[in-house]
Amino acid sequence: MDLNADLGEGFGRWTLTEDDALLTCVTSANVACGFHAGDPSVMRRVCDTAAARGVRIGAQVSYRDLAGFGRRAMDVPAAELTSEIAYQIGALRVFAEAAGSTVTYVKPHGALYNRTVRDDEQAAAVVAGVLLAGGRPAVLGLPGSRLLAHAREAGLTAVEEAFADRAYTPRGTLVPRGDEGAVVHDADEVVRRSVGMAVERAVTGADGGRIPVEARSLCVHGDTPGAAALARRVREALEDAGVTVKAFV
Amino acid sequence: MDLNADLGEGFGRWTLTEDDALLTCVTSANVACGFHAGDPSVMRRVCDTAAARGVRIGAQVSYRDLAGFGRRAMDVPAAELTSEIAYQIGALRVFAEAAGSTVTYVKPHGALYNRTVRDDEQAAAVVAGVLLAGGRPAVLGLPGSRLLAHAREAGLTAVEEAFADRAYTPRGTLVPRGDEGAVVHDADEVVRRSVGMAVERAVTGADGGRIPVEARSLCVHGDTPGAAALARRVREALEDAGVTVKAFV
Amino acid sequence: MDLNADLGEGFGRWTLTEDDALLTCVTSANVACGFHAGDPSVMRRVCDTAAARGVRIGAQVSYRDLAGFGRRAMDVPAAELTSEIAYQIGALRVFAEAAGSTVTYVKPHGALYNRTVRDDEQAAAVVAGVLLAGGRPAVLGLPGSRLLAHAREAGLTAVEEAFADRAYTPRGTLVPRGDEGAVVHDADEVVRRSVGMAVERAVTGADGGRIPVEARSLCVHGDTPGAAALARRVREALEDAGVTVKAFV
Amino acid sequence: MDLNADLGEGFGRWTLTEDDALLTCVTSANVACGFHAGDPSVMRRVCDTAAARGVRIGAQVSYRDLAGFGRRAMDVPAAELTSEIAYQIGALRVFAEAAGSTVTYVKPHGALYNRTVRDDEQAAAVVAGVLLAGGRPAVLGLPGSRLLAHAREAGLTAVEEAFADRAYTPRGTLVPRGDEGAVVHDADEVVRRSVGMAVERAVTGADGGRIPVEARSLCVHGDTPGAAALARRVREALEDAGVTVKAFV
Repeated sequence: MDLNADLGEGFGRWTLTEDDALLTCVTSANVACGFHAGDPSVMRRVCDTAAARGVRIGAQVSYRDLAGFGRRAMDVPAAELTSEIAYQIGALRVFAEAAGSTVTYVKPHGALYNRTVRDDEQAAAVVAGVLLAGGRPAVLGLPGSRLLAHAREAGLTAVEEAFADRAYTPRGTLVPRGDEGAVVHDADEVVRRSVGMAVERAVTGADGGRIPVEARSLCVHGDTPGAAALARRVREALEDAGVTVKAFV
Repeated sequence: MDLNADLGEGFGRWTLTEDDALLTCVTSANVACGFHAGDPSVMRRVCDTAAARGVRIGAQVSYRDLAGFGRRAMDVPAAELTSEIAYQIGALRVFAEAAGSTVTYVKPHGALYNRTVRDDEQAAAVVAGVLLAGGRPAVLGLPGSRLLAHAREAGLTAVEEAFADRAYTPRGTLVPRGDEGAVVHDADEVVRRSVGMAVERAVTGADGGRIPVEARSLCVHGDTPGAAALARRVREALEDAGVTVKAFV
Repeated sequence: MDLNADLGEGFGRWTLTEDDALLTCVTSANVACGFHAGDPSVMRRVCDTAAARGVRIGAQVSYRDLAGFGRRAMDVPAAELTSEIAYQIGALRVFAEAAGSTVTYVKPHGALYNRTVRDDEQAAAVVAGVLLAGGRPAVLGLPGSRLLAHAREAGLTAVEEAFADRAYTPRGTLVPRGDEGAVVHDADEVVRRSVGMAVERAVTGADGGRIPVEARSLCVHGDTPGAAALARRVREALEDAGVTVKAFV
Repeated sequence: MDLNADLGEGFGRWTLTEDDALLTCVTSANVACGFHAGDPSVMRRVCDTAAARGVRIGAQVSYRDLAGFGRRAMDVPAAELTSEIAYQIGALRVFAEAAGSTVTYVKPHGALYNRTVRDDEQAAAVVAGVLLAGGRPAVLGLPGSRLLAHAREAGLTAVEEAFADRAYTPRGTLVPRGDEGAVVHDADEVVRRSVGMAVERAVTGADGGRIPVEARSLCVHGDTPGAAALARRVREALEDAGVTVKAFV
């Protein structure tokens, strides 16, 4: 099982994610590329640290929206979106390669992640941007999303992820943020669910039933206080349960 | 002799440079990378056209200053500047490579160009960014500039350029913009000077004297009305004078 | 009948709208406030000229989207949108008041204009921003829009506008941009329709039928070549037809 | 003695200053206006809280530089700078007035603060922007600065400030940041110096000598951990020493 987290989400004077601490326990780093967060100096620093520790570097691509942190869905025309995605991947690749690594995967951020679950046009546009950028990185996303469908059609490696701290509906989709109980705040419960998803390939749904979860990567959050400590607990619990924690690619 | 021009200096809804027309006559395209101009879609389009026509692609790197078009000198700390330069080169490289070409050179824009003539720290920081970005592109700049000195020290190809429409002081430096007569507006005179610089390696100075000019590239402006027509005349006059017009790299 | 046009839609080095020429014939200037276009210097210049010529100044408020020129619909949370609208109005008011005028009305731009036709939440958020900014300016928009409904409920003056160069459906709504024939390109036809909307309160629909149009303001475009010349013809034709051309407020 | 601090220096998802806690002890709030920090929602929130607590609202105007947090000196042409200053003041005034207060003073931030100490042209441009914005707010700055000289010449109230945690040279200027000992980190020492500057109108210089300090306002920092706790201690110590802590205007 791979552990991924959003990293490098500071900008200029502002910091957000506990980059150094998280890079001691995750295996894949979703690095912000400057459109919702992540100035070039932050990107460089995160890539240097990730490469030094053998953590895989992924491009966390986003809408161009610093003020909204990429959380505002935007009707970006497909051709523009494709170019914007390629631009971000290219910028990050420089720092990844300078550190002796490369961009091994791409994961959309925030509103773009949510939108490309069902919006076929934007999902296709993101995959077109990934192809345009070259290097054929993997694409990380939600099981059943249009994004992963388009990635597969393009012959890219499509990697499904599960969420350590999100509630699932009986149909296996995520309980929407904003709904009661959408996020699991209890650390013990997050750890327990993580192990369940890795070992039994299932999680307890919002209605108490057993929900099958097929995922090669587990997303832990990086932008909340205590994120790194929780990620560390998840990793240790996985290893204690006999799960090999390693990057998917 | 190479002919270079600034291209792709639109942004979103705004256009500035006559990209298509200029790409029929220059041999090197200084493509804006998003910091002073040049959104990803413009960058892609210019790279596609340049590559199709065999025009070399250069990264026209800049301060982060859309509102000032990169014409406001900024005290950017060296480490930040290095990262910002690498970021821009990487972003452009994606589009150059997708078009079957690559970024063969780097030329700073506007205030960064002027500042790195004498500011040793920023000149070194720009060259560090070029090295960080990899691929060892050439560096295009003013003869005698700190920028070219640092590029040479780093083992990069340093290419000196002359300006078709700028007046020169008796010492061979440019008459500062804003001074009387700094820019040559008469098209015939621009053409005559261009040929003189290419054939006789000299130009008539502001005081009427002969100024030696050693340059492998000639910069023609792209952001003024009639820029493409003038560039075409310069090219034809050079060829008529027996000068081979081709990229320096 | 009032004549309104979008103005001040340059940014930094870029220009778009023929501000000076348009300000000789329109009676209401929709001034961009920096979020999709319009840097502070442009805003100041347009306000100075508008005030000197007795043209009313309106805040052309927008999503924060320079790269997309405000034409990408965005899911901005209501409270943020309200603050962003108020910010833009306040910034513009400084230049309007320094020129001896004030912001007499507000008109959303681009995607925000289109979205607030039907999106009740965003329409209410825009009106809340107008109220927050104080001064109780009028709101200019599409007849039947949620925006105007909320403006009226808030006790603001709601002004309906018609479009000189847009086709209308039999139901009186605009033919969507992108559809065949959505924009009327023939100048004579634009002039004829303008007079018809002002004098007969009606226009010929896409199916040839008569569509009633109730509007106190007529929008002429400012961002196309020849925009000022066309606006002048429209104004002269209105005056020749006995229509008094003056601001609605 | 007035106590001022920089506030509202978050942006979108990022927070920096302990706004709520600082607003319980300072008497003047330097509110970021969106150019180096401070999105419209933050500005609104800070203004609402400040007004509710009787804290004066000042416009903390800056270069347009989110990525550099306004700490990079920029060669902004005077006319552009004037417009940019007025824009920021106007935007903030909307939120101040909506909260029942107004913008009572202006204080440049970061590199603009430092530059207008000696740069006559930019200092004059800032004051021209303050005048353009109307309302004749006071100007807060360094004793002896060109900024305050221009403010006085324009008939504005010029208010001199001292720094609670900065070392002073024997000539009464600040020890440049970056120099050894430039910032006083010991909280007890900061408190002691603050009382000394308020009561004895003097502080101990870097060489141990007594430096006279004439200031009507004392700046405490808001963007360091523990800033609010330290500000509270300073205020209590001032009051214990019999100093009346109140806004200068």
